[in-house]
Amino acid sequence: MRLPLPGFRDLYPEDCAQRLHIAAAFRKIMGRFAFEEYDGPVLEPLELFEDKSGPEVAEQLFRFEDRGGRPVALRPEMTPTLARMVGARCQSLRKPIRWCAVGEQFRYERPQKGRLRSFLQLNGDILGESEFRADGELIASLLSTFLELGLGPDHIALRLSDRLLWGILLEQFPGIDGEGVLRAIDRSAKESPEAIGEALRAALGVASDKFIAAWSRLSECKSMDALRKFFSPFPKAAVRLTQWSGLLEFLGAMGLGGFVTIDLSVVRGLAYYTGFVFEIFERNGAGRALAGGGRYDDLVEKLGGPSLPACGFAIGDVVLSNVLAEKNLFGGGSATLDLWVAFGEGEQANGGLAMAAAARAAGFSVSYDLRSHVAIDRQLRQAARSGARFALIDNLSGGWRIKNLSTGEAIGCDEKNFISIWFAICKKSELAIGGDRKF
Amino acid sequence: MRLPLPGFRDLYPEDCAQRLHIAAAFRKIMGRFAFEEYDGPVLEPLELFEDKSGPEVAEQLFRFEDRGGRPVALRPEMTPTLARMVGARCQSLRKPIRWCAVGEQFRYERPQKGRLRSFLQLNGDILGESEFRADGELIASLLSTFLELGLGPDHIALRLSDRLLWGILLEQFPGIDGEGVLRAIDRSAKESPEAIGEALRAALGVASDKFIAAWSRLSECKSMDALRKFFSPFPKAAVRLTQWSGLLEFLGAMGLGGFVTIDLSVVRGLAYYTGFVFEIFERNGAGRALAGGGRYDDLVEKLGGPSLPACGFAIGDVVLSNVLAEKNLFGGGSATLDLWVAFGEGEQANGGLAMAAAARAAGFSVSYDLRSHVAIDRQLRQAARSGARFALIDNLSGGWRIKNLSTGEAIGCDEKNFISIWFAICKKSELAIGGDRKF
Repeated sequence: MRLPLPGFRDLYPEDCAQRLHIAAAFRKIMGRFAFEEYDGPVLEPLELFEDKSGPEVAEQLFRFEDRGGRPVALRPEMTPTLARMVGARCQSLRKPIRWCAVGEQFRYERPQKGRLRSFLQLNGDILGESEFRADGELIASLLSTFLELGLGPDHIALRLSDRLLWGILLEQFPGIDGEGVLRAIDRSAKESPEAIGEALRAALGVASDKFIAAWSRLSECKSMDALRKFFSPFPKAAVRLTQWSGLLEFLGAMGLGGFVTIDLSVVRGLAYYTGFVFEIFERNGAGRALAGGGRYDDLVEKLGGPSLPACGFAIGDVVLSNVLAEKNLFGGGSATLDLWVAFGEGEQANGGLAMAAAARAAGFSVSYDLRSHVAIDRQLRQAARSGARFALIDNLSGGWRIKNLSTGEAIGCDEKNFISIWFAICKKSELAIGGDRKF
Repeated sequence: MRLPLPGFRDLYPEDCAQRLHIAAAFRKIMGRFAFEEYDGPVLEPLELFEDKSGPEVAEQLFRFEDRGGRPVALRPEMTPTLARMVGARCQSLRKPIRWCAVGEQFRYERPQKGRLRSFLQLNGDILGESEFRADGELIASLLSTFLELGLGPDHIALRLSDRLLWGILLEQFPGIDGEGVLRAIDRSAKESPEAIGEALRAALGVASDKFIAAWSRLSECKSMDALRKFFSPFPKAAVRLTQWSGLLEFLGAMGLGGFVTIDLSVVRGLAYYTGFVFEIFERNGAGRALAGGGRYDDLVEKLGGPSLPACGFAIGDVVLSNVLAEKNLFGGGSATLDLWVAFGEGEQANGGLAMAAAARAAGFSVSYDLRSHVAIDRQLRQAARSGARFALIDNLSGGWRIKNLSTGEAIGCDEKNFISIWFAICKKSELAIGGDRKF
């Protein structure tokens, strides 16, 4: 018996239910925030990703030639596809564009805890609006998604940072390799201080000690007051700090202020961010980011699309699933069966099938033994094993009864009055019956 | 600006909404039939599919070597993955196993109407039960899925056939190539009578005229009486015909008899079917099958799994979407916005954000202008363009009002009483408000 490829998962029903739970939460919250869902191909022309997503992603592509000789790749992220789609219809799309995608992404990385080669990702993006309320609305949708899944401000923090403030700081060190500095800082959570110092020295040259001291002080700024004090020597920062206050007030007004920590040590590795950037981490420290994003005002045009300010985030399901499982936030797992039908033979059995069909048409989940000639008692033992809440049982002497399998309470019925009696039982029952019933 | 690969689709929100509508119907109905959803990797070891899925599928694989030198392929179907998953846990899984999957499949075919290189497919399978009720339950779930999407017995027919009856007929022609015959018949919908006759003659040799006459008569059998008459010379067929009656009665008892037509010209191309086989077609004739399936009692073991009787079906989304669109069965399309918030500046704006957050927390979709300093009137014109049903409007003089944007009716509120007034309006309103509100 063969195994899945390294970094890929067989999702048995209990695992699949967890992924569906996450995907449903993604869609529910993004809908409330008035995002529309789009999707693109899982397989794309290689050129769409090459040279565009930074060296790290390019190294991690699943790429090959298809049978027509085209270089192709499994998508590692949505943004290039998003840029193409928005670009192709930019005139006709109402701005701002609020779009989200819930789809599979692929990266040829070394599989490890929290890192697989295929994963589900929610992408949320707002395009066509440069004001900070767009960043705020985007961050609010991201945080509300975590809230919906049971992760509140006690569990997770959003670390907010800013490429614009970083740019103002870097301007004070003329001649240094700003990109190299930001990449080194981005790795600072993953590498040793020596390695970071080394990378910073390589990027910075002679100014390194002075810069490292400034970096260290900036990373310690955890309040607006501290930020204002740090940037008081730089007049260009004043307007930007007003936007910072505005964004924090915005998130506070939405009741989401408890999630937010100011943390300028976050810079996000990818080169294309141009404004606010953020990552979500567990409060208790260790582990990879649960989500990240930021503003990328130049990227859509760079990818061949129109010039369109934009901000976006992505949440993957791998780290998220681990955290939800550790904290027991997945709930009951698989769906509960509403009704089990226990049949005799012949005409009566047909009546049972008709009632099963009626209950299903009304939205309930129904099952029964698929074999013929099985004694009612054995069928009822199966009903108990299935976890069904009720059983519809052939009396064999004509007529049926509906039995509550937890209380043992039963009430008679026939094929004609079954649905009304069943609905009455369901309404009366304090059991929360699952599914999508319609009454 | 680059294009998607041939045979792949950019799904804009209106197209994505259609795919989500289909996927939701798949999941809803399969849940009512007590199927549990599983999934496997989109990318699998090439060996999983080679030599196993018949020559046609093997030719159509998207295959390549990954960076670790492993031959891999994008999955063209679910069954090999299903066999692996069931095989790995066969002891602990309760039988019969009722599993379904809603996932993307990939085939390197020539793209054309109704045929793309990537498509969504619902797979339903019942494993571990050989009696015909399992076939019946499977077919019932398939037909109920079409019913849920609006396709009733007036629109579509299930053509029911049987590899076992075919086997009994083929036994009468010793020495002929039965597989070749069935493949030729399977292509009979797509090829000219001459080509089929040619293939049949190659497969059959001297017995061809007699066989072709029998084939022709069998294809004309459209009732149980006709089937019984045809097979009356063959005593082995009697038991099987009883199962035929049982299956038709079963589907009739569930109210699904109107879909079923007896049609022994259907044989299904793949070699692995062992009993009832079926395809779903539009009643009005032309076009590809909307779905197909059958019993495959030997396949799971052949794929390296346990010996387990099984039956299954698959529905793809491409032909289905075309049919639903032609018949106008997709409904309203994208979701309707429940509430638009029109703000002033300052403290009042924060109150508006708090009310927006409260409405969203109660399950409503809410949007607003992301720019500052936009006059209320302009914001309301945007609300109208957005299609929102209600607007929450800053009176600027303190206080707010909730306005029904179709009737113009408005009622005052403030931040404290907003949610109760909003709920009262929603309950009173005859507008069906979308989303997932919780009261």
